[in-house]
Amino acid sequence: MPIVNIKITREGATPEQKAELIGGVTDLLQRILGKNPATTVVTIDEVDLDDWGIGGLPVLVYRAAQASKESKP
Amino acid sequence: MPIVNIKITREGATPEQKAELIGGVTDLLQRILGKNPATTVVTIDEVDLDDWGIGGLPVLVYRAAQASKESKP
Amino acid sequence: MPIVNIKITREGATPEQKAELIGGVTDLLQRILGKNPATTVVTIDEVDLDDWGIGGLPVLVYRAAQASKESKP
Amino acid sequence: MPIVNIKITREGATPEQKAELIGGVTDLLQRILGKNPATTVVTIDEVDLDDWGIGGLPVLVYRAAQASKESKP
Amino acid sequence: MPIVNIKITREGATPEQKAELIGGVTDLLQRILGKNPATTVVTIDEVDLDDWGIGGLPVLVYRAAQASKESKP
Amino acid sequence: MPIVNIKITREGATPEQKAELIGGVTDLLQRILGKNPATTVVTIDEVDLDDWGIGGLPVLVYRAAQASKESKP
Repeated sequence: MPIVNIKITREGATPEQKAELIGGVTDLLQRILGKNPATTVVTIDEVDLDDWGIGGLPVLVYRAAQASKESKP
Repeated sequence: MPIVNIKITREGATPEQKAELIGGVTDLLQRILGKNPATTVVTIDEVDLDDWGIGGLPVLVYRAAQASKESKP
Repeated sequence: MPIVNIKITREGATPEQKAELIGGVTDLLQRILGKNPATTVVTIDEVDLDDWGIGGLPVLVYRAAQASKESKP
Repeated sequence: MPIVNIKITREGATPEQKAELIGGVTDLLQRILGKNPATTVVTIDEVDLDDWGIGGLPVLVYRAAQASKESKP
Repeated sequence: MPIVNIKITREGATPEQKAELIGGVTDLLQRILGKNPATTVVTIDEVDLDDWGIGGLPVLVYRAAQASKESKP
Repeated sequence: MPIVNIKITREGATPEQKAELIGGVTDLLQRILGKNPATTVVTIDEVDLDDWGIGGLPVLVYRAAQASKESKP
């Protein structure tokens, strides 16, 4: 009876993609650890971009900095 | 100073019900473990139905499948 | 099918107390929100005292400070 | 840069099984949502059996009750 | 590669304040524990006031009770 | 009354470092958001290295792969 939580940035994941993720993770837990799918619970948290930080920066600022770094010769 | 998190599907829990839940859980922790209610914190996460999976399926699909199974002779 | 997580400091909660807590929280969710006990999952995290902070201090230091404050005239 | 947390009961999952789980979940997120594996973080919490409740009971008591129910004619 | 989660009541924290928080926590983890900022992830959960309880009460009720207590002679 | 959770790999953080982290995060929340330190709770989870994955690999395997890549001309 595993409990899985998946946090992703809120950027338009569709209900179909979420359903595929729920099915995929549940399958993995059954195949690898023999966990019963009937009692495997998966929750997905979509987190607003302002509320997600990486590298000490809000994720949008971080991505812009990475992109600018990569475009430099 | 316990920290309690309750995740439920978003299906119309009222502020009154949430208040009752907060009070009830805090009482339990005081009665069973002697925890000080003044520093017991309870948070409730309402999770959208698309973001909750059980049995490898989004919860609405799962419920429909269960209902159809139960209505079969 | 709620998911409940209870974090408490690790200070000797017994299996019997934990069982009572699991039963009590599950009952509350059924009584207040009509949630099915069969799919209510409760996990308890016991957190070492060094890993718990309140008031900007590790909890043992915090308690000592409170006790000393209260014992002053 | 998703963050995944997987809670399972502590019942002997091996480092190899955990590695397979980490790889599998990371692959799923890349395949379904296009998430960059380099910044996908997965943590696994193994929860002691006393600290896991389902159906209002500690999981071992719950399993014993289920087994006894199923063995009845 | 630490993972930090900060839960606060939803009361108007601005993107600038969140960015400052993300930067500040990432700095602390680098300074105190030598953690690489590039792989430090911070998420912020703003929790609705109805969904936050303290002292056995929803937070707004709790604050009103505290204020009324303090204003008494 | 914020609730902060910090997950780090279990690699010998000392009680003194944890205390400094607890104090530092609590200060940040007071300085940036005006949060009351008295009710700010911080918990630290030390996660075993087998239970932490990044880049689709357990963290030790990932680090070895990074080190080997960097040492190549």
